[in-house]
Order: sequence, then C-alpha cells, then structure tokens
Amino acid sequence: MILTGPEIAREREAGRLILDPFDPGQVQPNSYNLTLGPTLACYTGEVLDTRRENPCTLVTIPEEGFVLEPDRIYLGSSVEVLGSNHLVPVIRARSGAARLGLFVHVTADLIDVGSIGQSTFQFHAVQPVRVHAGDRLAQVTFWTTQGDITLYDGKYQGSRGPQPSQIHRDITAAAAR
Amino acid sequence: MILTGPEIAREREAGRLILDPFDPGQVQPNSYNLTLGPTLACYTGEVLDTRRENPCTLVTIPEEGFVLEPDRIYLGSSVEVLGSNHLVPVIRARSGAARLGLFVHVTADLIDVGSIGQSTFQFHAVQPVRVHAGDRLAQVTFWTTQGDITLYDGKYQGSRGPQPSQIHRDITAAAAR
Amino acid sequence: MILTGPEIAREREAGRLILDPFDPGQVQPNSYNLTLGPTLACYTGEVLDTRRENPCTLVTIPEEGFVLEPDRIYLGSSVEVLGSNHLVPVIRARSGAARLGLFVHVTADLIDVGSIGQSTFQFHAVQPVRVHAGDRLAQVTFWTTQGDITLYDGKYQGSRGPQPSQIHRDITAAAAR
Repeated sequence: MILTGPEIAREREAGRLILDPFDPGQVQPNSYNLTLGPTLACYTGEVLDTRRENPCTLVTIPEEGFVLEPDRIYLGSSVEVLGSNHLVPVIRARSGAARLGLFVHVTADLIDVGSIGQSTFQFHAVQPVRVHAGDRLAQVTFWTTQGDITLYDGKYQGSRGPQPSQIHRDITAAAAR
Repeated sequence: MILTGPEIAREREAGRLILDPFDPGQVQPNSYNLTLGPTLACYTGEVLDTRRENPCTLVTIPEEGFVLEPDRIYLGSSVEVLGSNHLVPVIRARSGAARLGLFVHVTADLIDVGSIGQSTFQFHAVQPVRVHAGDRLAQVTFWTTQGDITLYDGKYQGSRGPQPSQIHRDITAAAAR
Repeated sequence: MILTGPEIAREREAGRLILDPFDPGQVQPNSYNLTLGPTLACYTGEVLDTRRENPCTLVTIPEEGFVLEPDRIYLGSSVEVLGSNHLVPVIRARSGAARLGLFVHVTADLIDVGSIGQSTFQFHAVQPVRVHAGDRLAQVTFWTTQGDITLYDGKYQGSRGPQPSQIHRDITAAAAR
C-alpha cells in the first residue's frame, strides 16, 4: 500500500519515517515534495565504465540557475534527509518537471528500507532546461512492506550531497570473497 | 497492493475508479492499456526553464503517423479519462513501446488520488519512432492506499488533451504567501 | 505491499516466485539483483515504427565489455529466469548503474503476473558507458496483489534472451477480430 499524504505526516510524527526539514505545505495527496540542493556532480570522463571509478567534478548552481544539457548525466541531491526503518521510499519526478522533459532519476527510484540520507537525483534533460537551487522537482512516496526487515547497510548510507556511482566496487567485493 | 486486471474491472463497476471509455479487451493481468489521442504538444523555446512559462505548439498526428525525434520532448494524452478517489493510478509504458526505445513518461508516473482527467504522456524517443493516433503505448495500474485521503485539487485537475508544465506557477504561489 | 529481501527468499522457498539461478548474496533489503546476460539486440532501421516489424541484429558482449552509445536503444536480458503466479515483479536499475546515466528500462518496469522468463532490459545510456556480461545493473522487486488472478498468456511468454518489440502485432490482432 502507498501512504496517503496525511498518513506520511502521521507516520513522521510517530517516528516511523524521516523527512527533515519538514514543511506541511509540501505534503501532496500521496507524496511529499523534495527540494533541490545547491550542488551538482558531473563525470569528467568521455566514456563511463561499470568496472572502474569514474571521476567527477562538482558545480554550485549560481543565482541565475544552471542549464542542464541533454548529452550529460548530472547528479544532484535533496535538501531533505529522508528514509525509514519500516517503509520503502520511492522517488519520482513532480509532474511539472517531467513535462519539461527532465528526468529526476534514471530508473533507480527505490530506496532501501534503513537507508537514511539526502537522496541523490540522477538528472537527464531531453532538451536544455534551466534549474534553480530550491526548485521542487521531485517527490517521495512511501510503501508498506511484507516480511521481516533487514536494514540497509551499504555503500551510500548517510549520504550528504550528490554521490557518484560506486558500482565498480562490486568487482573488488567479489574478488575479496 | 496492486490491483489485478479482474479487480480493476470490478472496482470500475463499483464506481471506485474511472476508466472511460472502457474496453474489456484492454484489461491486462495487472493493468489497463491506454490509447494515444490525436494531439501532441511541443515547446517552441530553445532552453526550457522551471521558473518561467514555456510556450508550446500543438500538432495533430496525421493519418500516416508522426515521427518523434530524439532531441525533443513531446506531450500527448490518453483518449481515456481516468482517476480514482480511492486508489492511486500509476502510468507505465507497454512493453512493446519501451522495447522500441519510447519513454511514455519522464519519471512522473504517479497520479494523485482524486485527480480525474485524460492523462498527459511525456514522450521521449531514444531513436526516431513513428507513432499513430490510437496506438496503445501506455498502461495504467492501480494501487491501494493506507491512511486518510485528501483529494487532489491542483493545477492539472480535469485535464483534456496534453497539458504543458505549470511548474513556474510554484514561484508565484510562494511569492503570494 | 513490497516484499522485503528476506520475504523474497522465503516466498521463493515456498514456490510462490521463481528466481533461477538464485544466489543468497544478491538479496537486498527490498529487492534481488539481476545479472546481465551475454547478448544485446539493436534495431537496424533508421526510423522505428509501432505498426511494422523492426528488424534487429544481435551482438555478443566481448571480454573487454561493450560501449553503449547514447543515440541507440539496446535490448539485453537477465541471466535469471524470473516471474510469479502470485506476485507482481517490477524491474528497476541498481543505483550504481543509474548514477552512471544508464537506464535499464524505458518506463516498462512491470511484469505481468504469470509471465515467466528471462527479463528483457531496455538499455539507454545518457553518456557512452561500457558494460560487461555478468554486471549486476538491475534489480527486481515483488508486490502483493488484490483481486482474482488471470495469468499472463501473451506474446513474450517464456522469453530467453533479449526480445524485440512485438507491438506491431496489435494491429494484426485487431484486424483479425
């Protein structure tokens, strides 16, 4: 089941999910709006690779906004720290961002139960689009679970700011076994 | 929980969700297929912006179909009016559209409980792809909710045809408070 | 409700879902990681069409990996055979793949209840990205259903390897009625 907006507020009060800072005006019928933080990360390499580290550079969004170009992937993050040890958060675009052709994730919408941090957005713009720090481009929904819970204890735990891919560490982990 | 196809038909009979027109042949095991209406909308500006209005032009899909180009975002809409005051609709592509590299939304798949209208698709084609009015490119699923319901009462209520982004109105609303 | 990782393992033991081969090390807090098989399919035509067959060519991923180019759609498949007659599988990217700008589906994330086979991925790379057979790029989640179940009996049943779009067969089916 998906939590309704009033239920998101209630479960937050009960300490069963984290949304911090919290503004009641951002509660939607089935979701909560997320705010874009000031920093973006871009890869510097020409060709990315799942099996090596991919170096990144950071950009601070200026006052007049920043134009996301179509041929690049940009990582951003939510101002809000979010997560739950009981429910599963799922990220999606707000309709108004998507209608401008702006993807806020790249099919990785699921947050593991027990993962608490600022959420990393994966931005991809179909046409150039200017975004601004403080824009509410994304939203989070919360879903009930069935079964025993094992909390997330992975490589992105406690994220602050946009976090580049760590998928190349899978190989190191596999080799170490 | 996600409604099965037979449950979608049953809940529609019971007046708990709207799918109109309704064709029993379009009920799938967990979803209902949606039909592409005749009109597409495209932005006319070079660089889009989350904080200003982005002008649009309308195109009618001709008899021979219309080729969606990769570097543009196109808004379309379902022929069907859909929504629910009890369940949450979520839109996705039919497999056959996605296997042609055609996105039917841009990470905005969630419809708020209480929002009733023709659904706006956000089309993005990875390679050029010819689509036709009447194509069944998308499907809708329905999900049960937990908690008190506050019905949607927002800027896209009662949509007919493709609706451009209204995200710039967030600013005006914030300034007015 | 979404199944937790331990519940995915338990339901598999109980024969209520299929994940084969199964490696307990790939169970995540709410999902199970999927492995990329050795074959990719690409369309050979310039402009794709929803109403005709779109010819494909197959590529075997070489030892050094294969660079996915941004302007093409690639179909891949999971090594794992998966599905369920009781639950609804939904596919998504692992976070590490998405953070490299690699879509693993094109808004077709839902698998019908009763559909059993290797899952076809729809890859789209925002920037060029090198992938390798055996990479764990995607994951599957499982969701409980409400209502009577009609099992899938469609055109992609029992898939092995990447399966091109069959959406043009909708027309033939409609014409035959």
